[in-house]
Amino acid sequence: MINQKYFERLAAELAKTDYAAALVAPSPELQFLLGHSPLISERFEGLFVRRDGSYFYICPLLSQEEMGEILGKDSVHSWSDGDGYLATVEWCTRHYGLYGKQVAANQATRACHVLEIAATGCLEFVSGRALMEEMRIIKDAEEMENLRIASRRADEAFTELLTFIRPGMTEKDVLNKIRACFRDQGLAGGGLVAVGPNASKPHYNRSDRVIQETDLVLMDYGCIYKGMYSDITRTVFVGEPTEKQRQVYGIVRQANEEAIAAIRPGVKACEIDRVARTIIAEAGYGDYFLSRLGHGIGYAEHEAPDIKGSNPRRLETGMAFSIEPGIYLPGEFGVRIEDIILMGPDGVEILNQAPKDLIVL
Amino acid sequence: MINQKYFERLAAELAKTDYAAALVAPSPELQFLLGHSPLISERFEGLFVRRDGSYFYICPLLSQEEMGEILGKDSVHSWSDGDGYLATVEWCTRHYGLYGKQVAANQATRACHVLEIAATGCLEFVSGRALMEEMRIIKDAEEMENLRIASRRADEAFTELLTFIRPGMTEKDVLNKIRACFRDQGLAGGGLVAVGPNASKPHYNRSDRVIQETDLVLMDYGCIYKGMYSDITRTVFVGEPTEKQRQVYGIVRQANEEAIAAIRPGVKACEIDRVARTIIAEAGYGDYFLSRLGHGIGYAEHEAPDIKGSNPRRLETGMAFSIEPGIYLPGEFGVRIEDIILMGPDGVEILNQAPKDLIVL
Repeated sequence: MINQKYFERLAAELAKTDYAAALVAPSPELQFLLGHSPLISERFEGLFVRRDGSYFYICPLLSQEEMGEILGKDSVHSWSDGDGYLATVEWCTRHYGLYGKQVAANQATRACHVLEIAATGCLEFVSGRALMEEMRIIKDAEEMENLRIASRRADEAFTELLTFIRPGMTEKDVLNKIRACFRDQGLAGGGLVAVGPNASKPHYNRSDRVIQETDLVLMDYGCIYKGMYSDITRTVFVGEPTEKQRQVYGIVRQANEEAIAAIRPGVKACEIDRVARTIIAEAGYGDYFLSRLGHGIGYAEHEAPDIKGSNPRRLETGMAFSIEPGIYLPGEFGVRIEDIILMGPDGVEILNQAPKDLIVL
Repeated sequence: MINQKYFERLAAELAKTDYAAALVAPSPELQFLLGHSPLISERFEGLFVRRDGSYFYICPLLSQEEMGEILGKDSVHSWSDGDGYLATVEWCTRHYGLYGKQVAANQATRACHVLEIAATGCLEFVSGRALMEEMRIIKDAEEMENLRIASRRADEAFTELLTFIRPGMTEKDVLNKIRACFRDQGLAGGGLVAVGPNASKPHYNRSDRVIQETDLVLMDYGCIYKGMYSDITRTVFVGEPTEKQRQVYGIVRQANEEAIAAIRPGVKACEIDRVARTIIAEAGYGDYFLSRLGHGIGYAEHEAPDIKGSNPRRLETGMAFSIEPGIYLPGEFGVRIEDIILMGPDGVEILNQAPKDLIVL
């Protein structure tokens, strides 16, 4: 059940640092290493991977059987609710030669746990964010294929949504339809639906607005196929858009397409971000493009590489990321168009084929 | 939109400590304070509450409009993906007089963020877990009423489940039915369904097993009603249980009922845990009761007070928590029976009325 290849990648990344081990709390990263991630709870739980690729796991007693089946009983050290977790952590750090050493904690690790453990003196912690991202920034052939299929499923859902959306529905109705599209295929999926002025909030997460006779509908959603995520955004119009909406849509689409056209191995992530940002700024909307241009995607919806002005990382074959320019006008509306791009073995692949023409339903 | 009452509670708890402020990352706790919690993402975001109850909020640019509407524009300090979050955090700590001081981070705060901020020297962090729990351990009249309704909805779902479950269904089918029961009432809800030997894993989170002609089905689920959670577990039988299953069911039920009967104001949480643990141990299954007896519940599914051997806290009117003894036999089966208990103004209320008799479908 253990993905040995991934343990080796993590050990190789650790060897480039001074850290004695990495701590991987339940998360997509743990899923990546074990093919399974337990229920996320407030109890301390996580996988420790040492520089040589060897590992042990600490968990509450109630996960002991499950994790023992995956990792082998001898590698799993459990603690009871009655005793608490700190004594087990201390015992393990001594037993595995980590006492007093530096450990890189993954992004999902909770601050309370590292602060409580560090206060006992048995470990020091550093941020393991970059280390963990490096481990999986280059996708292999199987991961690439699963990314392609995940995006295709998202495109198919878009086709269904086009015939589903009608005035009088709420944002939640559309979101439930998105979830149902994926559920019907046995996949987990979801996202956000923002209508009219709500679309000016890139991370809008309410769902009560009713779609009017003339309204704009921004849908940002995706699914998970064999552990690999998809993520697509389309903005469609119910009834005729205003002149300003047409203009903004055209700018965002141009930014999306020209940024994608600029992608090739060796180009820096920040340069791709600049292509889109320049188009939007020159059209007079620079202050309203509120986010990075894109984020990496794979075992998590957001992972490396970030496509943003402060990331000088050069793009390489095997990377996958979103290109999602947007213009967000507070109190008015917002437009975002997002595709997943894969730097495939034969060149740049645009994984989403859902139409980007301005669609009026 | 701000719940002033809760800010005052948090400030009162802070005043009992040496900490300069509390940091509340997106979570049920933030929901509790603001009536809203933004989408959880990898970007740094959170509410800082100072000892005097004053506050400010740091978020990515993309949440600026949304959070400004709730907190007022002047209290929201945003950062762009291009610049990163650390400069904004440093500016705020200087502007608000927190530079170099100790801040208590809530449970949802990510380790990577506190480690990255602490490395710049502008703040020190301590675990704010206990502080945040104390803030909401006593429920007010409105919270109590919402807890009662949330549990009633869970009971109603159980009635539907009894006529739904049939051999040939998968665990996932039952889980989808649970979600649908709540969705039909406009509520979010979910849980876990573990069939046969899978029920020996208290936090089982897979869902592929098909229910056999003779099988045991453990369902642990709940919903959220106006921010308040419910959480119920029932274990039912498809076809005749074995003699051992009948015996184990009876022990767990007795542990549940005698523990509940022992609850009254002034009793220590650990004493209630002992009542159930003694019954199970004397029946010879002490090694197979893997968890605490219960957990507090309210704005989160799990909050204070824990009902466990290491918690000497005395129970008080206004507390709400689960009582959920279980016996988990690896490779065989597991039984858990869980109810939510509210220490109401007129005495102990058992919020779940779903039957606890051994049910054979």
